[in-house]
Amino acid sequence: MPIAPQPDLALAAQLFDALSGATRRGRGIVRDSYGAGEQAAHDIARSAASALELEISLDAIGNLSMTLPGRDRSAPRIVIGSHLDSVPQGGNYDGAAGVVAGLCVLSGLRRARFAPDCDLSVMAIRAEESAWFDVAYLGSGGAFGLLDPACLSVPRSDNGQSLEATLRQQGFDPQAIRERRRLLDPSRIRAYLELHIEQGPTLVARGLPAAVVSGIRGCKRFRNARCTGEYAHSGAVSRAYRRDAVAATVALLHHMETVWLRHEAAGEDLVLTAGELFTDPALHGPSKIAGETHFVLDVRALTDATMAAVAAEARAAAARIGTEYRVHFDLGVTSDSPPAVMDSRLRARLLSLLEQPFEMASGAGHDAAVFAKVGIPSAMIFVRNENGSHNADEAMSLDDFAVGARALLELVMRFPL
Amino acid sequence: MPIAPQPDLALAAQLFDALSGATRRGRGIVRDSYGAGEQAAHDIARSAASALELEISLDAIGNLSMTLPGRDRSAPRIVIGSHLDSVPQGGNYDGAAGVVAGLCVLSGLRRARFAPDCDLSVMAIRAEESAWFDVAYLGSGGAFGLLDPACLSVPRSDNGQSLEATLRQQGFDPQAIRERRRLLDPSRIRAYLELHIEQGPTLVARGLPAAVVSGIRGCKRFRNARCTGEYAHSGAVSRAYRRDAVAATVALLHHMETVWLRHEAAGEDLVLTAGELFTDPALHGPSKIAGETHFVLDVRALTDATMAAVAAEARAAAARIGTEYRVHFDLGVTSDSPPAVMDSRLRARLLSLLEQPFEMASGAGHDAAVFAKVGIPSAMIFVRNENGSHNADEAMSLDDFAVGARALLELVMRFPL
Repeated sequence: MPIAPQPDLALAAQLFDALSGATRRGRGIVRDSYGAGEQAAHDIARSAASALELEISLDAIGNLSMTLPGRDRSAPRIVIGSHLDSVPQGGNYDGAAGVVAGLCVLSGLRRARFAPDCDLSVMAIRAEESAWFDVAYLGSGGAFGLLDPACLSVPRSDNGQSLEATLRQQGFDPQAIRERRRLLDPSRIRAYLELHIEQGPTLVARGLPAAVVSGIRGCKRFRNARCTGEYAHSGAVSRAYRRDAVAATVALLHHMETVWLRHEAAGEDLVLTAGELFTDPALHGPSKIAGETHFVLDVRALTDATMAAVAAEARAAAARIGTEYRVHFDLGVTSDSPPAVMDSRLRARLLSLLEQPFEMASGAGHDAAVFAKVGIPSAMIFVRNENGSHNADEAMSLDDFAVGARALLELVMRFPL
Repeated sequence: MPIAPQPDLALAAQLFDALSGATRRGRGIVRDSYGAGEQAAHDIARSAASALELEISLDAIGNLSMTLPGRDRSAPRIVIGSHLDSVPQGGNYDGAAGVVAGLCVLSGLRRARFAPDCDLSVMAIRAEESAWFDVAYLGSGGAFGLLDPACLSVPRSDNGQSLEATLRQQGFDPQAIRERRRLLDPSRIRAYLELHIEQGPTLVARGLPAAVVSGIRGCKRFRNARCTGEYAHSGAVSRAYRRDAVAATVALLHHMETVWLRHEAAGEDLVLTAGELFTDPALHGPSKIAGETHFVLDVRALTDATMAAVAAEARAAAARIGTEYRVHFDLGVTSDSPPAVMDSRLRARLLSLLEQPFEMASGAGHDAAVFAKVGIPSAMIFVRNENGSHNADEAMSLDDFAVGARALLELVMRFPL
């Protein structure tokens, strides 16, 4: 009787240690996109894949695929992936956990001599963090030929070297991006699965080790909203004659909180944030009425319909409150990124594999959004993580990781669903 | 039959022209406190007083008194005063209008051969604007020995010269301030009257030429209020787990607006202003929840009781909203200046002298606050003025000025009340 396959947690522990050892700089992790840190992580993944005798291939822009061959090599494959880069002074798990999960699933299957129906690939995706090059989804977007070639001139944030020069220096081929060449064929991928640490506190607060991701929130952001009133003496102008930009902005943001509560009460997924809000330090003063504010209104939801409704409510409220407070709101245009829908069959199956089934939205973007966008059924698992992500204090336990990796392993063993 | 005394408006027009001609620098007026601009204005006033054959005296710190002798020279006198300095690039009327009003009242009385019961002095007060030396009420406070001698080392804002050196250079005596010497005896002044342009838009909006000032608002200011929450990803943290400093600050300021409306509905005089409000530009971001805000909450009212009540409500709301939003408010200590009460008999009499009686609070401070503080019955008249004050666009019509000056003249003719 063959042993029941289990994720290879010893390999996972060893890989997390190796990654931390090779890429920790001071307190935090530095795996710079298309730089020495990310490459060190790729080297560690590749050498683990060699030891597992996986088939290894590298695309023109450096995405690494490590494949356990299936019985039918002509069938579309399953990809388990995530990115290996980090933000500057990031943590050890954001991104890397998904690649490590893939490798320890394939190792577990290998050891159990499990022969999958189709090829199973672990994909170490390049440059997901836009901290280094201000381009969203460089590695996965590039793999599907989705990038605007203009991105080749984007400079690396720390040393100013262009993406094109950097790619060339690392031995990759910027021409693939220039020609919008498709390095991956969506019709040849039957599913994309990504394990990632949760970047918020929900699972910690709920005492759950893992969750299935219901979808990746889109974002509709008023990046440069402005309220213009009139500067005046704070003592000498009574309420009826004020054109107080702060008072009006407070009224607008307060109203938007009631809008949020209403959508939430209706069962819609939504988060609303004004993360920047400021009067002009050159013109404001402790005894002045402020004549201007600048602010950001960041609207995120799982559906375009919710985001459009909230943006419309913001514009209507700005017009109404602008009249009421005798100020002018210019919310400006929004910068939009669409929500990504996760595959309902994969979600349902993953949920059934969790002892404590729980689903939640992802607020941050992930490579899974790109795979979903090109029509590949995609799903994600979040693993509990303390202290948020993008900092040195990310903390994921191997036990929690095991819960997520086990669900992944069991899911791939059940294909075709 | 003697002619009925009228304010000498021809003199007023001539003085305003002379002041503008001597102290306009580019678009605006520059009558720098204890500098060439203020001195030029004093020279103009003094020469007008000489022509009117008024008694002229100068105190140790440069305040100029120009007196029409009364029948009883031993009786306490009436002072009509204001300041002659301006802010940098200010207007022609803030301050000067009160001195000009005094001179054209005395000229009118002289021409009508009206002999007052007691001495009537016009006082050209030094350095009311703290734009040059950051000391409130330098001239009037110094006249009553109220200044902290430490102010002598305060530098002039543009050239850095200390107040002490500046006084000495202008031929005045800093020792008077050092010894807290009383240059004016409050018991020898029966009333202080000040005409000033309104610095807000109320009279323009109401179509009234002048108003009686009900009192000078005090100020209780939370100068360095702060809200501390936690920075986090704007997409990844749901409402229940946020510690959003902007959302909490918006909730507090919104609540304070309802407090304002409630006090206003109860008939209390109050203005509330958050003139500075900002997230930290080094740490905030368009896709972050803000972990901190800084703001000012400026509370002004005609009574200490109202200010104390509003400050207490702010502290209580900050505690409650802090808990609700899982943030910490530190409102800090308040900087306080007390309200100044205008004399009720003088107010009533002035009101009766206006064709369209109207009373309003003064939000900005005036020398009248100092005279009131030392127990001298004080009153003020506001004259309609377009475009606010402290800028080159101050605009007061001579007709409106005449309404205020006439009320002053009739008031002093009626003494003792």
